[in-house]
Amino acid sequence: MKLTRFFSSSASTSPLETDLVRLLGKDKCSFDLEDRTVYAYDAGEEEGDLPLTPPCAVVYPESAEDVCAVMAYAHENGIPVIPRGAGSGLTGGAVPHMGGIILSLVRMNKILELDTKNLCAVVETGVVTADLQAAAAEAGLFYPPDPASQDVSTMGGNIAENSGGMRAAKYGVTKAYVLGLEVVLPDGRLVTLGSKCIKDVAGYSMTELFIGSEGTLGIITRAIVRLVPKPETVITLAVCFDSMEGAGRAVPEIFRAGVIPCTLEFIDSTCLTAVRKAGLLGSSQEFVHDRTRAMLLVEVDGRAAQVAEDVRQIRSLCEGFDMLSFAQAEGQADRDNLWHVRRSIHGALALLSDHWMEEDISVPPAAIPEMLSRLDRLAREENLMIPCFGHYGDGNIHLSAASLDSPLDPSGETDLRRKIFRHAADLGGRIAAEHGIGIAKKAFLEMNLDNDTLNFARQLKTVLDPNGLLNPGKVFPGSKTGP
Amino acid sequence: MKLTRFFSSSASTSPLETDLVRLLGKDKCSFDLEDRTVYAYDAGEEEGDLPLTPPCAVVYPESAEDVCAVMAYAHENGIPVIPRGAGSGLTGGAVPHMGGIILSLVRMNKILELDTKNLCAVVETGVVTADLQAAAAEAGLFYPPDPASQDVSTMGGNIAENSGGMRAAKYGVTKAYVLGLEVVLPDGRLVTLGSKCIKDVAGYSMTELFIGSEGTLGIITRAIVRLVPKPETVITLAVCFDSMEGAGRAVPEIFRAGVIPCTLEFIDSTCLTAVRKAGLLGSSQEFVHDRTRAMLLVEVDGRAAQVAEDVRQIRSLCEGFDMLSFAQAEGQADRDNLWHVRRSIHGALALLSDHWMEEDISVPPAAIPEMLSRLDRLAREENLMIPCFGHYGDGNIHLSAASLDSPLDPSGETDLRRKIFRHAADLGGRIAAEHGIGIAKKAFLEMNLDNDTLNFARQLKTVLDPNGLLNPGKVFPGSKTGP
Repeated sequence: MKLTRFFSSSASTSPLETDLVRLLGKDKCSFDLEDRTVYAYDAGEEEGDLPLTPPCAVVYPESAEDVCAVMAYAHENGIPVIPRGAGSGLTGGAVPHMGGIILSLVRMNKILELDTKNLCAVVETGVVTADLQAAAAEAGLFYPPDPASQDVSTMGGNIAENSGGMRAAKYGVTKAYVLGLEVVLPDGRLVTLGSKCIKDVAGYSMTELFIGSEGTLGIITRAIVRLVPKPETVITLAVCFDSMEGAGRAVPEIFRAGVIPCTLEFIDSTCLTAVRKAGLLGSSQEFVHDRTRAMLLVEVDGRAAQVAEDVRQIRSLCEGFDMLSFAQAEGQADRDNLWHVRRSIHGALALLSDHWMEEDISVPPAAIPEMLSRLDRLAREENLMIPCFGHYGDGNIHLSAASLDSPLDPSGETDLRRKIFRHAADLGGRIAAEHGIGIAKKAFLEMNLDNDTLNFARQLKTVLDPNGLLNPGKVFPGSKTGP
Repeated sequence: MKLTRFFSSSASTSPLETDLVRLLGKDKCSFDLEDRTVYAYDAGEEEGDLPLTPPCAVVYPESAEDVCAVMAYAHENGIPVIPRGAGSGLTGGAVPHMGGIILSLVRMNKILELDTKNLCAVVETGVVTADLQAAAAEAGLFYPPDPASQDVSTMGGNIAENSGGMRAAKYGVTKAYVLGLEVVLPDGRLVTLGSKCIKDVAGYSMTELFIGSEGTLGIITRAIVRLVPKPETVITLAVCFDSMEGAGRAVPEIFRAGVIPCTLEFIDSTCLTAVRKAGLLGSSQEFVHDRTRAMLLVEVDGRAAQVAEDVRQIRSLCEGFDMLSFAQAEGQADRDNLWHVRRSIHGALALLSDHWMEEDISVPPAAIPEMLSRLDRLAREENLMIPCFGHYGDGNIHLSAASLDSPLDPSGETDLRRKIFRHAADLGGRIAAEHGIGIAKKAFLEMNLDNDTLNFARQLKTVLDPNGLLNPGKVFPGSKTGP
């Protein structure tokens, strides 16, 4: 009953308004409908997919103490809180579809320390990922995780989603870089997990519980992240094949030879054809042969001598698997040239259909060829286009699907998603690689987690958030999606 | 009340005996006092430190189903269960000091899969770490974690303790290699966490919660661990300095230059003097100059060209910091020669005192010089010898302490430990790097974890094990140490 009085989106002064202003001060709160409405979305929601529910308030804490105050108050009064970084998520994790308070971390955007001696940084979690990357680079260091959203997304969002990116096969995902976290629990308690120590067995490993928890277990206010020395050299390669099978046979040989590329992207024949048909090949025409049916974009980094040897070995291995052409770039302009095809895919696909369903799935890397051929079969059976590209090295496929007949309706999309996820799960894969579960995929989570495992997760959620007020309706199948 | 009937160590047939034999079969149980007595110890306990309590039964499950059956039965009947790998732990984590059932995982010792395509292995957790390393090496792969106990310790023990080793600065500790776990919860439920996928955000990151949980949250029955390609070349270096300060200034410069040695061990002047006085320098005399006050043992691995460049750079940087001598080895015999001093430390110290207190602490790597000089000051103030050696690259100091007067009594040891831990904590360090908390350090855990954080850990323990029956009396300060 307590809840309902706060769910109103009326503009008149509410008790909530009075209380939040008292707690934080006026300049850290907003109650304007306009402000609230912009926080009803994330980057993945299309209008109409879900009923739009503006939050009843937006708060901008400037310290962990502010966050503790809001959480303790919300806990006491039974008000949902939805933490938010840049809102660049794609699965609805930051969407306040049940109303409540949006807790935006954008003002907590200080890099508190760049510790070049211990190779780590201490950041507030509103720091934009690219800003940390730039600061690290300036100090001769490197923060490897590179989600596509890095120019806008925040470290807190990246940690809450356990974001990946292009470099995961060599460098791992966000989780591999988090040494410690400061977290405000749903009831307002503040916990400090981990340390700058590389070896630390003082108590349980609780840091990771919050990584990838999508803002449902606690609000991450500070992080200690590991940095590595900046690689001396990076070389980019584009390798064209006349079949995905050829590319698929080359990749494991590259790894077996002890070469771990930092980036190993693939582009399938449907994508390549789309880019060619759209006239977007541009300068890539030089190396994208007409017979090209698959392309690998490879980056190797490290010491100059090792990188040169890596490149030699990659070329020689690919030659053994029907490579059609091979291009190599070192400078940024050259590199942009090689990346041109990959960057043109979205534009080219938009010319073929204005209704694409997009998905992010993960399989054990060696299962990529089988997954791609299953998707190919599915496309033929259901009269669809399913262009695929993604991170070959780490098993992450980004696929799009559009019908060659009439556009897929929501239930058709759900059916198709289920079929795709079933194939991934059959191959030991996961329904979500790096874009989270959020609202969009929660109905499918049981395809990956059995009952006991899911109930164990529910148990952890319940002990931390017994009233289900922190980012409600996310992650768990069957969790409420409206007030 | 239920508990007490099981705490008896009488040899007559007990209901427990009947029940366990019914559940598992006779050949998976032992109730002999002799058998039970050997399970009253781990590698760290000296007789007399704690009252010896043999368990009332030892079971040897051969499958996760067996483990589930034991756990469900123990949960229902209120019987403590103490999981055990090789018993090579040093802090009492596997010691049944409250009686109960020892659940030994030694029979679950199969490497179920060595997946060379996805660079991982699936193992039962009774597999000896060295056996996995050997199997991986045979397939051209590499399992980097190398705790000193690797020849006897099990993967399950390593995971439960989050074991480290020599290679952590480059390769990280055990946690960095665990992709997934099968865990039997205290009430007998079986959960399956993680997958072979490099990117996996399907649900919470629950795998890590069990890594380093010292067998207090669940029993790990199976693990998927990441392997990496075997490095092409390994070169070992020994570098002698006339002061630890010189070594201490060289190390961060090595990292800053982008060289990440896989091993970077240090040996202090007290250890070197002990080895010299004991006449154990042996063939190391060639490069251990009389004026040597600090020695670094460095290993670099990777591609031959990169390793050669790393060696050149390390040498040139060390020369700038008053290096006295530099030796380089490639073959195993040569390498053993360089490691001779390090391996002689224990023997040499044993000649100086027969009562050493040993400790395992962790500091942020850059704090090692300050920590060493604080230990030096402490030794002078308290009339002690505190020889130190350990893993410079990852901040892990293994120190010994002996009194120059009369041997330290237990309360003197506790006081000294507290002083040492206080210095480590002041420098952002931890009271435990890689040997766990167990029984030995639980009284000190509050020096690292504040109240709210410790209570949060207690909350997690309580939700999983409400009756406190799984490995009771470990990790948490104030937890019961006797029936």
